Amino acid sequence: MGDLLGVAVLGAGHIGADHIRRLDQVVSGARVAAVADPDTARAKEAAAGIEGVSVHAEAEAALDAAGVAAVLIASPDPAHEEALLAAYARGLPVLCEKPLVPDSAGALRVLEAEARLGRRLTQTGFMRRYDAEYRQLKSLLDSGRLGRPLMLHCTHRNVSSPPGFTSAMLVSSSVSHEIDAARWLLGQEVTAVTVLRPRSSAYAPAGLLDPQFVLFETSAGTLVDVEVFVNCGFGYQVRCEAVCEAGSARIGDGHTMVVTAEGGAREEVPQDYLVRFADAYDREMQAWVDATRQGRVTGPGAWDGYVASAVAEAGVRALESGHRTTVELAARPELYAGVDR
Amino acid sequence: MGDLLGVAVLGAGHIGADHIRRLDQVVSGARVAAVADPDTARAKEAAAGIEGVSVHAEAEAALDAAGVAAVLIASPDPAHEEALLAAYARGLPVLCEKPLVPDSAGALRVLEAEARLGRRLTQTGFMRRYDAEYRQLKSLLDSGRLGRPLMLHCTHRNVSSPPGFTSAMLVSSSVSHEIDAARWLLGQEVTAVTVLRPRSSAYAPAGLLDPQFVLFETSAGTLVDVEVFVNCGFGYQVRCEAVCEAGSARIGDGHTMVVTAEGGAREEVPQDYLVRFADAYDREMQAWVDATRQGRVTGPGAWDGYVASAVAEAGVRALESGHRTTVELAARPELYAGVDR
Amino acid sequence: MGDLLGVAVLGAGHIGADHIRRLDQVVSGARVAAVADPDTARAKEAAAGIEGVSVHAEAEAALDAAGVAAVLIASPDPAHEEALLAAYARGLPVLCEKPLVPDSAGALRVLEAEARLGRRLTQTGFMRRYDAEYRQLKSLLDSGRLGRPLMLHCTHRNVSSPPGFTSAMLVSSSVSHEIDAARWLLGQEVTAVTVLRPRSSAYAPAGLLDPQFVLFETSAGTLVDVEVFVNCGFGYQVRCEAVCEAGSARIGDGHTMVVTAEGGAREEVPQDYLVRFADAYDREMQAWVDATRQGRVTGPGAWDGYVASAVAEAGVRALESGHRTTVELAARPELYAGVDR
Amino acid sequence: MGDLLGVAVLGAGHIGADHIRRLDQVVSGARVAAVADPDTARAKEAAAGIEGVSVHAEAEAALDAAGVAAVLIASPDPAHEEALLAAYARGLPVLCEKPLVPDSAGALRVLEAEARLGRRLTQTGFMRRYDAEYRQLKSLLDSGRLGRPLMLHCTHRNVSSPPGFTSAMLVSSSVSHEIDAARWLLGQEVTAVTVLRPRSSAYAPAGLLDPQFVLFETSAGTLVDVEVFVNCGFGYQVRCEAVCEAGSARIGDGHTMVVTAEGGAREEVPQDYLVRFADAYDREMQAWVDATRQGRVTGPGAWDGYVASAVAEAGVRALESGHRTTVELAARPELYAGVDR
Repeated sequence: MGDLLGVAVLGAGHIGADHIRRLDQVVSGARVAAVADPDTARAKEAAAGIEGVSVHAEAEAALDAAGVAAVLIASPDPAHEEALLAAYARGLPVLCEKPLVPDSAGALRVLEAEARLGRRLTQTGFMRRYDAEYRQLKSLLDSGRLGRPLMLHCTHRNVSSPPGFTSAMLVSSSVSHEIDAARWLLGQEVTAVTVLRPRSSAYAPAGLLDPQFVLFETSAGTLVDVEVFVNCGFGYQVRCEAVCEAGSARIGDGHTMVVTAEGGAREEVPQDYLVRFADAYDREMQAWVDATRQGRVTGPGAWDGYVASAVAEAGVRALESGHRTTVELAARPELYAGVDR
Repeated sequence: MGDLLGVAVLGAGHIGADHIRRLDQVVSGARVAAVADPDTARAKEAAAGIEGVSVHAEAEAALDAAGVAAVLIASPDPAHEEALLAAYARGLPVLCEKPLVPDSAGALRVLEAEARLGRRLTQTGFMRRYDAEYRQLKSLLDSGRLGRPLMLHCTHRNVSSPPGFTSAMLVSSSVSHEIDAARWLLGQEVTAVTVLRPRSSAYAPAGLLDPQFVLFETSAGTLVDVEVFVNCGFGYQVRCEAVCEAGSARIGDGHTMVVTAEGGAREEVPQDYLVRFADAYDREMQAWVDATRQGRVTGPGAWDGYVASAVAEAGVRALESGHRTTVELAARPELYAGVDR
Repeated sequence: MGDLLGVAVLGAGHIGADHIRRLDQVVSGARVAAVADPDTARAKEAAAGIEGVSVHAEAEAALDAAGVAAVLIASPDPAHEEALLAAYARGLPVLCEKPLVPDSAGALRVLEAEARLGRRLTQTGFMRRYDAEYRQLKSLLDSGRLGRPLMLHCTHRNVSSPPGFTSAMLVSSSVSHEIDAARWLLGQEVTAVTVLRPRSSAYAPAGLLDPQFVLFETSAGTLVDVEVFVNCGFGYQVRCEAVCEAGSARIGDGHTMVVTAEGGAREEVPQDYLVRFADAYDREMQAWVDATRQGRVTGPGAWDGYVASAVAEAGVRALESGHRTTVELAARPELYAGVDR
Repeated sequence: MGDLLGVAVLGAGHIGADHIRRLDQVVSGARVAAVADPDTARAKEAAAGIEGVSVHAEAEAALDAAGVAAVLIASPDPAHEEALLAAYARGLPVLCEKPLVPDSAGALRVLEAEARLGRRLTQTGFMRRYDAEYRQLKSLLDSGRLGRPLMLHCTHRNVSSPPGFTSAMLVSSSVSHEIDAARWLLGQEVTAVTVLRPRSSAYAPAGLLDPQFVLFETSAGTLVDVEVFVNCGFGYQVRCEAVCEAGSARIGDGHTMVVTAEGGAREEVPQDYLVRFADAYDREMQAWVDATRQGRVTGPGAWDGYVASAVAEAGVRALESGHRTTVELAARPELYAGVDR
């Protein structure tokens, strides 16, 4: 079985360690060949018990390690650009956790570097495209059974925000998932953003504008609204309703068990994205491994990562100015022609 | 407006007082003309503030009071037979709370008395026939869209049983509603009963067999199962699923508000039958008033009251013997020809 | 029973005839004493079979008819102002279908006339305040269990729009219900409106901007969004989700029967507001009759009717300009102090 | 990566081919080392494209093939016994599709053979134990939050039955899943069975008793009822409601997408068990591979396979006699002490 895909994982923190476990135990056809983290103790712990893995402090050393044929980037966001360029220099296929690069200027540099290679190496980690419910919704929209989509109503709620989470990050970090999901579901680009500020919850940290209500306009005139509320207290809840000309379809209220007790019927709401989207992460990585072993690149690419950054930046400007803000995108290189459906 | 229907209400206890309020304030076309209760203080309190009402200790005095044109019987079950015969003697239309008469022998005497009159005067208080959900289900079954019904799965749950509630009363009192509902929904008679005894809940009073699982066979071979659980703790829950040849239909899980908080999405379950079936009671009484003012009798009649008693008695025998017990019914008088749909 | 409330009904069209039936057959404590409609044939037809009713071509003649003690206005919107002033001149309590007066200037004249009387005579026909689900939601919000409300997400969908329905009427007619419901649920005034225009459905009449997405800001900073879509094709659907600091609550997805057949589980969606809100109409009118017989006025009043008109007018301006538009209200007369909860 | 578990798959039919695909593409840590099927063309087709696999006509040849360290039995039911004994003779761990052996006498022989080995080699393919909803329900029951379970209401519906499906097979084949699930959920043995026969659907093949209603009593007095309906027409639907002392919990109505169109809100019902339980099959096989690589055996074992056969046989006798039939089990060998939770 010499053809197992040897993967170098950059970053052994929360999600990095989870991805190492996933590659080792869940995904077929791949093995963890190298792990890099400046905190080598953490890297060693994440790699413990995996046969034939090497551990490194430097990302580039991991890329050059024996048996490495692909790269998974789960390092802190600011390290993504350098890691991507290093992978491109070696011709290694990459699965890069979102955001591709935190700022759109950096994302554009990455994009152009890949475009110069003349072939795609990058899959960006928008794992909602691999969630069963989102795929079901997209399949329905693509079928045309409900006519054209006119509006998307989205909800993105977290139990509580981590320390240091800023008002801008509700748009740039949380809503970036909805940016990609909306583009993918609709096959349309986002053209303008408005951010409204309802009164803030008393349970949000002082000064944090939470919740926010974000409005996206698309190239085809579809209106996308997103409630983002990162201190909602009760659970991790991601919903999407597509309102079309001949019907509407809703995902995200799915339940698996109804418990009737103490005067009410109750469905559990997951508390965490790793729970809600566990299967999507599994499927995403399996899809990447399968495609990579066949020499192909599928799924959201560098262009999608760049657009998400650019729209999020416009969103942050809209939040700060209080005004509708148009989105300006660079010309799309030939390599990324066509909206990825 | 001299044609408001003057009603004598017999019994001013829990449900009697509620019906007096209903006739006075909710139902149009009727007025409370007389109230009878051996506890005249209770009768006076229930009649307080109603114009033109007389209060009596004796039921017959109320029937003879000025302005009385119809009778509502809400007195204790053992008093029903005498009250019904007194109403018949005066030719007064009657709405009689269930059970018509607690034992089937007495119910049969009442039935034969009405049959001798040669016209129907009696509506029996099976108010589920007036519940919007049950009507929706019956209308669907009658439409034939789902083919013939093969099974009914029923649930009848109460928060807790009142003092003095016996194992036999789970069948004779609680399940009597399902007996009538099944006959009405299916248009079939019940032919045999079996009662199974799951282990009892630790929250049921000592010695009470609760829950029970009751199986009815019908004349057309439809199987009806009823979970009756009168100390379920969490609410008053009545459900019915009709399994048909071409689909199934379920009522009783209907919700009106979903609250998401504290890690779950929750729907309230009503705690009481007066809450769950408030509209059914209103509609039942309005239907009775409307029909009576037009000189008609509609809805479940004395025959239905008799059958419910007879089936319940067979059920109690089945509970006690542990065996399947067949149901024997008297010949149906011509007056009650045809199953009431 | 001389104290049945004699009601003059102005207007015997679609909703007028339905209200006449409701007063005659559903609501207790009232009777239809007079009916007025310029089309007296229509008035006679609606009044047929009602004892002691008189029929008139002129509204004022009906107000002066024998036995009239209260007025129900169901005439065309432009006739409301004159009818209200005529009722005030006679000191008659009024239940006036929404809108109170179509334009806010007229509504203000009516309001000031009632204020000069020094007592309230008017209940405005915002019947959602009487809907069981809305009341359940309001009761939950008032309890404080979920903390302060931060956002309301509303949906208002109709199967199809009637002939002559204009883009402005989506705001001024359809959304006026949400305007009142939001004010009532929140106990807050609306301070600004923005109307967004998603691409229009191919199934909407040519030129009609349908759907629209309307945003209301309130005095306390709560954000209210309303999807209004009057040619959605599939049903009449009214939903409201209140997002609060400690949880969210949603109404309008309530179902009563689930049918599983042909590869799916299906719940019916009502096709018409008279079906969806039948009970609310019943309860509204009963509440009005009960209060009127006791010499009281409850429920939404002339102030609420005026505010709804003023907000709707701002909404139409926002639709036309494409900009956020602030709402300017007249000073509230002492008579209407306090938000009506 | 020499430690990938080499698996011999016996049987390359419908489910065998699906399991070969699963082992090859979905499950990590394993590879298909050999495939056996009397129809070697079919075996070759199922093995096509898999590196290092050998194809055989005889099961024993596959067990002896190079690289085989474990066996997956997906051959026709009557071949199971011989295959199991051959695996035991070689000390190979086995995952055996249900039924372990179709008749309880044969199952007992297998069981005793394994007991003589003194260690467990067998996992039986009751994959519901690996379904996320069933696990959620079991976890809730085990937590004790709802008190002791009193009843299980189960539904097992198929779109249509395959050719040759007999009345006895509704019990012995379809309901065998509920037999194992009930034992596992409750931690109790089944002690008696009764089978009731509602009238049959006109859409069932002539002579087939479909639906049936099966009642199981357990060692602790819990009552389990199962509606089995294999020609329900609308979908594959598996539900389970556990009624406990302090609440009830229901699985199997879970939905992921609600589509509102054409007058109703609709959730899809899967048409096939491979769709409904795809994840459970994946998880089952992964669990087996993981345990086997670690030299352990987990999950349902030969004892569970034997008991399911014995209970199903009693069920068939109950169906044929029309009477309650007690279940007699052989003494449980020490190796299988304790109910497997």
